[in-house]
Amino acid sequence: MKVEQDVLQKNDRLAAENRGWLRARGVTAFNLVSSPGSGKTTLLERTVREAGLPATVIEGDQATDRDTQRIRAAGARAVQINTGAGCHLDAHMVAHALEDLDPERDSTVFIENVGNLVCPALFDLGESAKVLVASVTEGDDKPYKYPHMFRAANLVLLNKIDLLEHVPFDADRFAAALREVNPRARLLHVSATRGDGLGAWYGFLRDRPTSA
Amino acid sequence: MKVEQDVLQKNDRLAAENRGWLRARGVTAFNLVSSPGSGKTTLLERTVREAGLPATVIEGDQATDRDTQRIRAAGARAVQINTGAGCHLDAHMVAHALEDLDPERDSTVFIENVGNLVCPALFDLGESAKVLVASVTEGDDKPYKYPHMFRAANLVLLNKIDLLEHVPFDADRFAAALREVNPRARLLHVSATRGDGLGAWYGFLRDRPTSA
Repeated sequence: MKVEQDVLQKNDRLAAENRGWLRARGVTAFNLVSSPGSGKTTLLERTVREAGLPATVIEGDQATDRDTQRIRAAGARAVQINTGAGCHLDAHMVAHALEDLDPERDSTVFIENVGNLVCPALFDLGESAKVLVASVTEGDDKPYKYPHMFRAANLVLLNKIDLLEHVPFDADRFAAALREVNPRARLLHVSATRGDGLGAWYGFLRDRPTSA
Repeated sequence: MKVEQDVLQKNDRLAAENRGWLRARGVTAFNLVSSPGSGKTTLLERTVREAGLPATVIEGDQATDRDTQRIRAAGARAVQINTGAGCHLDAHMVAHALEDLDPERDSTVFIENVGNLVCPALFDLGESAKVLVASVTEGDDKPYKYPHMFRAANLVLLNKIDLLEHVPFDADRFAAALREVNPRARLLHVSATRGDGLGAWYGFLRDRPTSA
């Protein structure tokens, strides 16, 4: 387990460097984490179009640049990181992506992590806040089953609430589970396809939290 | 990367031992992998009740024994493995769980892996086949974006097809993506809640594939 600790310590140091680099530019970064297919990219496409914030995006995927193409089509600059067999972004990858991206002063950077509710929990990227996107199709027990990731989140967006009537998901049970695992996390209900709750999400972004 | 190779080599050796242990008892093991919330446990509850196979279950989760409780309530013996911060089961954990489970001769063992489309791809557990459960709510691009896991699968169950009319999912595009990434994988459409396609799944299980 020594090796793992060394890896995490090195990552924490590089994440602190990223945090300094971002602060020097007045840039706020959000680390978006979720299961595969929870709707992070759809949310970002819409956010780029509607939130009225100057924003750029770092896309993390095992393979393909599909999400980067989608973000560019929505009107924002984006760079892709492919992790190969890796299950998460790390601070070193993000440092290089930030240099490539060269975000303008006082802008927002969205970092879309690899779809994974386990690995990204341990790796600080230097972000101001972790945003966990969960969807109602995944079941209301997920905070209990993936406690590390839910504990690390500053904001939980419960997405796909347009599908609520079609799935066995109890929103009160989900909220209670989240409170038990992480009482400090904010929770917003959204539908990235239909638009529900996005005003509150854009408000959260405009408040620009400044520490992780 | 030397450490990682050593870990994988050790795992492969222990997986081979598991395979021998299972073969000596005539037991067929299936390794079920998916994103969080794709419906593996719901599928297993129903399979335990309906498939007419003597079966036991090994449940893998970061935390809680919720899924084990659900399987026991459905009528099968089950043991829980909690991986803590870990993102997958490994052959060593499964070896211990098999000793605890003590499956009867010529029975079936289902191993429900941690919900994760990345890490379990690399870790052989000694199973006869990997079954990947994908759901229509996750999007039709997933084989491209998680190629290691889709390439490792012997069978892909496309689950939640009862929700197909409510989500932007193109089943033909998904099938084409899967064929491109893994032409050998079989694909079945199922709904673990409504029952669609489960006859074909039970048929696959009764055919008892004997090698990974």
